[in-house]
Amino acid sequence: MSNQKLFNVAVVGATGAVGEQIIRLLAERNFPIQELKLLSSARSAGSKIAFKGQDIVVQEATPDSFEGVDIALFSAGGDVSKALIPEAISRGTVCVDNTSAFRMDPETPLVVPEVNIDKVSDHKGVIANPNCSTIQMVQTLKPLYDRYGISRIIVSTYQAVSGAGASAIQEMLRQSREVLDGREVEPKILPVGSLPKKHQIAFNAIPQIDKFVDNGFTYEEMKMINETKKIMGDDTLEVTATCVRIPVVYGHSESVYVELKSDFDVEEVKQLLADSPGIVLQDNAAEQEYPLATEAAGKLETFVGRVRRDLSNPRALNLWIVSDNLLKGAAWNAVQIAEYIAIEQN
Amino acid sequence: MSNQKLFNVAVVGATGAVGEQIIRLLAERNFPIQELKLLSSARSAGSKIAFKGQDIVVQEATPDSFEGVDIALFSAGGDVSKALIPEAISRGTVCVDNTSAFRMDPETPLVVPEVNIDKVSDHKGVIANPNCSTIQMVQTLKPLYDRYGISRIIVSTYQAVSGAGASAIQEMLRQSREVLDGREVEPKILPVGSLPKKHQIAFNAIPQIDKFVDNGFTYEEMKMINETKKIMGDDTLEVTATCVRIPVVYGHSESVYVELKSDFDVEEVKQLLADSPGIVLQDNAAEQEYPLATEAAGKLETFVGRVRRDLSNPRALNLWIVSDNLLKGAAWNAVQIAEYIAIEQN
Repeated sequence: MSNQKLFNVAVVGATGAVGEQIIRLLAERNFPIQELKLLSSARSAGSKIAFKGQDIVVQEATPDSFEGVDIALFSAGGDVSKALIPEAISRGTVCVDNTSAFRMDPETPLVVPEVNIDKVSDHKGVIANPNCSTIQMVQTLKPLYDRYGISRIIVSTYQAVSGAGASAIQEMLRQSREVLDGREVEPKILPVGSLPKKHQIAFNAIPQIDKFVDNGFTYEEMKMINETKKIMGDDTLEVTATCVRIPVVYGHSESVYVELKSDFDVEEVKQLLADSPGIVLQDNAAEQEYPLATEAAGKLETFVGRVRRDLSNPRALNLWIVSDNLLKGAAWNAVQIAEYIAIEQN
Repeated sequence: MSNQKLFNVAVVGATGAVGEQIIRLLAERNFPIQELKLLSSARSAGSKIAFKGQDIVVQEATPDSFEGVDIALFSAGGDVSKALIPEAISRGTVCVDNTSAFRMDPETPLVVPEVNIDKVSDHKGVIANPNCSTIQMVQTLKPLYDRYGISRIIVSTYQAVSGAGASAIQEMLRQSREVLDGREVEPKILPVGSLPKKHQIAFNAIPQIDKFVDNGFTYEEMKMINETKKIMGDDTLEVTATCVRIPVVYGHSESVYVELKSDFDVEEVKQLLADSPGIVLQDNAAEQEYPLATEAAGKLETFVGRVRRDLSNPRALNLWIVSDNLLKGAAWNAVQIAEYIAIEQN
C-alpha cells in the first residue's frame, strides 16, 4: 500500500551469525524500512553489508546511534543490550532484544508470536526474544496447552554448535577434519568460551551449554525452565531440562515428554499441530518421516514428529521437535515481533 | 591356580565389531581357555585372527561346530542365534547371546552381572546379553532401585553409530568428509540397513534406531522399556524411551530422569554410585567434569554425572550416563557372564 508507514530500523550485532539472518529476513520480508542502520562493536565497524542491492557501512553502536531510530533489533550479547537498550529507549526506540538481558524482567514481555503476541503491547520500550531452545518447544506445546492443559514437561535437547556462534561452527568443522585425518584435536571454544576447561565437540556429545548454576543445572537449562513458565503465563507448570551440545551445524532437536491435564486422541493431537501456524507435522513411521536438523536448517518453521502416546502414562505424549536455532530460534522470531510492532504503529 | 578347569570356547560372529572386542577381552582377561574356535558366516570364513600370539583360522559356523564346545559367545545377528543356539545347546554348549533373539523369552535369563548375576544359574542353555542402551542404564539405576525404590524412568539417548556395525561407522566418517568438502552426501545404511529410506547421519540427529512398532515407538525404544523391567524384575516400573542416533563413533550417552519412591540426599546418591561396581562418578560442575563419549570409548566402566535433584519434583533425579556401547554395552557384559559361568563350573 502506498500510504504504508516506513520505519528507521537498526540492527545491533549486524556482523554476527544472528544479525546476518535478521538483515536477510528484513530484505526478504520487505520490511517497511525508510533507513537501515547496521551497528556493531568498534572492532567490526567499517565493514560493508549488502541490503537490497546497496552496500551499508557498519557503524559502531553508541547511545547516539539510536537518534531517530524507530525499531532496533539487538543480538550483540547481554552486556551490549544492558548498556545500550536504556539509551535507545530514552531516545524513543522500541527494542527487540535477542539476548537474555531483559527476558526475566517482570516489566519486559517475553514473546513467541504464535504463543503470546498480545503481550507486545505491554512493552516499556523493550520486548525480549526467548532462548532458541525455548522458542521451538513452547511454540509446539502452546496448542496442546490451550486444548488439553499441561502439567509437566521433561525435555532433553540435541543442540547445534551455531548456537555458540560462528567461531564454534568453525571449531567443530576444524575438529571433525582433524579427527578424520587422525590428527590431534585441541578444543579452544566449547563448551563455554569464557570458562577454562574445553572439550572436543567433533564426534561427541557435551552435556553442558552455558555455565553451571549452584543447583547443578546449567543456565541454558534454567532458561528453558523459567522462560517456558513466563511465556505460557503459568507458574504451576513443572519443567525439567537437560541441554546437550552435539556435532550439528544448524538446527536444535528436542526429545520432549509432556503430561497433559485431560484425555486426548493422538490423531487429534497431530491434526492440531498440523493446523498450528508456523508448525509442520512430519510424522509417518511407515515412510520413516520425522524432523531432521539437516532438513530444518534454513527454514522458518518448527517441525514436529514422533508423536506418540506414552506407554507408561496414558495422559503423556512424546514428541521430537526440530527448528533452525538461528531462524525461528532467534532472527525470525525477532523479525516477527518487529513486524507486529510495525503493523501496530501503522 | 594349576588345577583350574580350562574351557573350549567359541566366538560366533568373530569378524564383527563386537566379536573383535570379545576376542580381545578373552585374551586380556586371561580367560581359562583350552581351545578357542572362531566362527563366522561362510563369507568371512578362512580369514585369520591373532589370539595370544597365534593365528586362528575363522571357520564357518555350522551345527557341528559346537561339538565339544563348553561356552559359546554369539554376536552374529538374531537369525544366526535362532538357528544355531538350539543346536549348540543340544551339544551341551552354554551360550551367551548378544542378539535380541532370546532376551524376552521367559525361560532365558537376561543378565547384567552387576544387577542380577544370580539369574545365570537358572539358564536352560542360553543367557541373553541385554541391548547396549539398556545395560548402562540399568547398571547405574540398580543401586538407586535397591536403596530408594524407582517408580518411573524417562530416558532420551544419544547413540553412537558403532551400534549399527562397522559399515555404519564407515558411512558416518565418509559422509562427514563429504560434507566438509562440500560434496553431495548419499546415505546408504542408516538409520536401518534393511529399510528403504536412508538419512544423512553426519552433522545430524536421527530419531530412529531399528524399525517402528505399531504403537509409534521403535524396537530399540521397546527394548529399553521391556528389558529394563525384566532385568530389574519389576513389571510395575514405568519406563519411557526416545532413542536417537548422533554422529559419535563409540559411546552411548543417555539423559535419564528417574522418580524414586523415597526421599534421598543428592550427596548420598553420588556416593552410592561412586561405590558401585563398574560405575565411575564424574560429577564436578566447578571443574566442568561430566561423562563424555570420547572419553568413555575404549573403557569397560559406565560413567555417570550431572547428578541433580529435579526442580519440579523433589523425588526425582536427573542423570547423564555414558558407556562404550561395544564394551559394557556388548562384548564386556558378555565376557563377564562367561567368566561367571567358568567360575561356577570350576
